[in-house]
Amino acid sequence: MAEFEIHAQLLLDTYRLGRMPLCHLLLHRNGVLPWFILVPETGVADLLDLAGDLRAAVIGEASRVADFIKHELACPKINFAAIGNVVPQLHLHVVGRKPDDVCWPAPVWGNLSATRQYTALEIGRLKERLERFLGGELVLSRE
Amino acid sequence: MAEFEIHAQLLLDTYRLGRMPLCHLLLHRNGVLPWFILVPETGVADLLDLAGDLRAAVIGEASRVADFIKHELACPKINFAAIGNVVPQLHLHVVGRKPDDVCWPAPVWGNLSATRQYTALEIGRLKERLERFLGGELVLSRE
Repeated sequence: MAEFEIHAQLLLDTYRLGRMPLCHLLLHRNGVLPWFILVPETGVADLLDLAGDLRAAVIGEASRVADFIKHELACPKINFAAIGNVVPQLHLHVVGRKPDDVCWPAPVWGNLSATRQYTALEIGRLKERLERFLGGELVLSRE
Repeated sequence: MAEFEIHAQLLLDTYRLGRMPLCHLLLHRNGVLPWFILVPETGVADLLDLAGDLRAAVIGEASRVADFIKHELACPKINFAAIGNVVPQLHLHVVGRKPDDVCWPAPVWGNLSATRQYTALEIGRLKERLERFLGGELVLSRE
């Protein structure tokens, strides 16, 4: 079977953090707020079209990332969405939100004008914390 | 137990269509595109914080609404999101999208400036079609 390829636009917009059992875990390059993207290895384009068991398992992985954001990054609120109007490959947004973030209360999609670049050190530390929090559920990318 | 109350802002923004087993089914008043909102009867604010079985069942109901939108309203794409930055009560957006709709490819949240009002006849017909499609899964509202 051909190896699964993450859509080129997603790779441009994100850092690859690692692999969960069903999903690739990506981090949006805009570091003004914690914005994770999960890409399950499937050819189905819409989350709600996934078979029930697979959908529940994929959303379970998103839920673990949401736990990380809430407990480790101190965001009280999670915005969760599967949109895909621009990038047709199924990908799930899991975004940590706070009432004092730069975009609040607007959703980030189409409304986030501020930008901030992560440092390599920040990415490294985030990966360490994710690995510790998610344990065997995450295999870190070596990039 | 006190009766569950849908958040006042959601009631202002939508028509009540009916009850599914776990969720109230609402229709956004802006009829430029098919925009459904499901409100599960829970006090949990974030979708990803719902217990796994309940989450899967609630998303299963969203998936049935997505099926309706795709098959009956001829939208090839579904945008699905749980945001809740303004209205804290958990509610799920299930939005039918087409490449020629007025907002494409932007997500509707914060980006939909066009408006269109449904007629009472349209709402009545939509409820009939939903009831036929969803069968026993939907009890129509009498409003």
